[in-house]
Amino acid sequence: MSLPEHRLPVPLEKAYRLLNHGPTVLVSSAFAGRSNVMAAAWSMPLDFSPPKVTVVIDKATLTRQLVESSGVLALNVPCRAIAAQTLAVGSESALDAPDKLVRLGVSTFAASLIEAPLVHGCVAWLECRVLPEPHNQSQYDLFIAEVVAAWADPRVFSNGHWHFDGAPEELRSLHYVAGGQFYVTGESLVVEAPEKS
Amino acid sequence: MSLPEHRLPVPLEKAYRLLNHGPTVLVSSAFAGRSNVMAAAWSMPLDFSPPKVTVVIDKATLTRQLVESSGVLALNVPCRAIAAQTLAVGSESALDAPDKLVRLGVSTFAASLIEAPLVHGCVAWLECRVLPEPHNQSQYDLFIAEVVAAWADPRVFSNGHWHFDGAPEELRSLHYVAGGQFYVTGESLVVEAPEKS
Repeated sequence: MSLPEHRLPVPLEKAYRLLNHGPTVLVSSAFAGRSNVMAAAWSMPLDFSPPKVTVVIDKATLTRQLVESSGVLALNVPCRAIAAQTLAVGSESALDAPDKLVRLGVSTFAASLIEAPLVHGCVAWLECRVLPEPHNQSQYDLFIAEVVAAWADPRVFSNGHWHFDGAPEELRSLHYVAGGQFYVTGESLVVEAPEKS
Repeated sequence: MSLPEHRLPVPLEKAYRLLNHGPTVLVSSAFAGRSNVMAAAWSMPLDFSPPKVTVVIDKATLTRQLVESSGVLALNVPCRAIAAQTLAVGSESALDAPDKLVRLGVSTFAASLIEAPLVHGCVAWLECRVLPEPHNQSQYDLFIAEVVAAWADPRVFSNGHWHFDGAPEELRSLHYVAGGQFYVTGESLVVEAPEKS
């Protein structure tokens, strides 16, 4: 697949900001000719520099097999335009439906530094290498990874900041709740700390 | 302090939904007569049942000392009405300013099962016991905790679901970015997965 039209690199020291507001992500991975994309609401930044992230990946998923075999994963930040696809890749397991990505119309392109697909239609992409933590992985399904490259759609993220206000509504990121319900990232609110007395 | 007027228990199996959409939280804690409240954008659910959460707590904070001493913490979900206070408690350390909470006008009330204060003006509260993981704590500042009691403001969360639409705008939860900028939790979007062909 061709590269997305709207994509610029994000400096690594600003990569945490792509996840700081708590969006739902798509986890993409590949190993030995197989690839997959799943949705994950349970992900967060873990460090600024080098940037690290956490994500929960259930044992009963193909993604878990691919990530543990390859040692890499990508976190893609989906937007309103692909909310239905986000729900679908999170509802269906590629272990039951090997043609999941094709059937759901998920198209991908190559990452720059890792062997994992990145998902078209997203507004940010974080390429990550897993920092092996066997206890966390087996006990909690918790993965820790270092971000090695980051990208964003400059229509909604540039100079280290999201700017959804003024951009097309379809490009706002998503926050999953349950039962097919998301909240869209809403209004920007800039506040000053109260006066110190 | 008196208990908040708007607060109902949330069944533990639904407690993860209080954080599933990725809001910024306030971490509250107490030990030996000292207490504190700090903001944390880096928090997520880790398990459904029993519910577990993760939160990153920097070594250079009073909260870190209190949580490691007491073995408990609470995650409070602040809303738009207290955005300035949320920024302030996250910008200032109680190690430098011991009167921080009083000066910033943060008022608290007693938790039900743990020895930690809960923050007035929030829309959800999770009382948690730390599951000691010394490697995660020292290496990554990462804390894992089990939720033992949960509460929410029924004006915006009931029957296991957030319902911000239709409630006062001031009660929407917050998603911090950087530099005093938050995004407010936005529009609700209910989608169906694409038809399987």
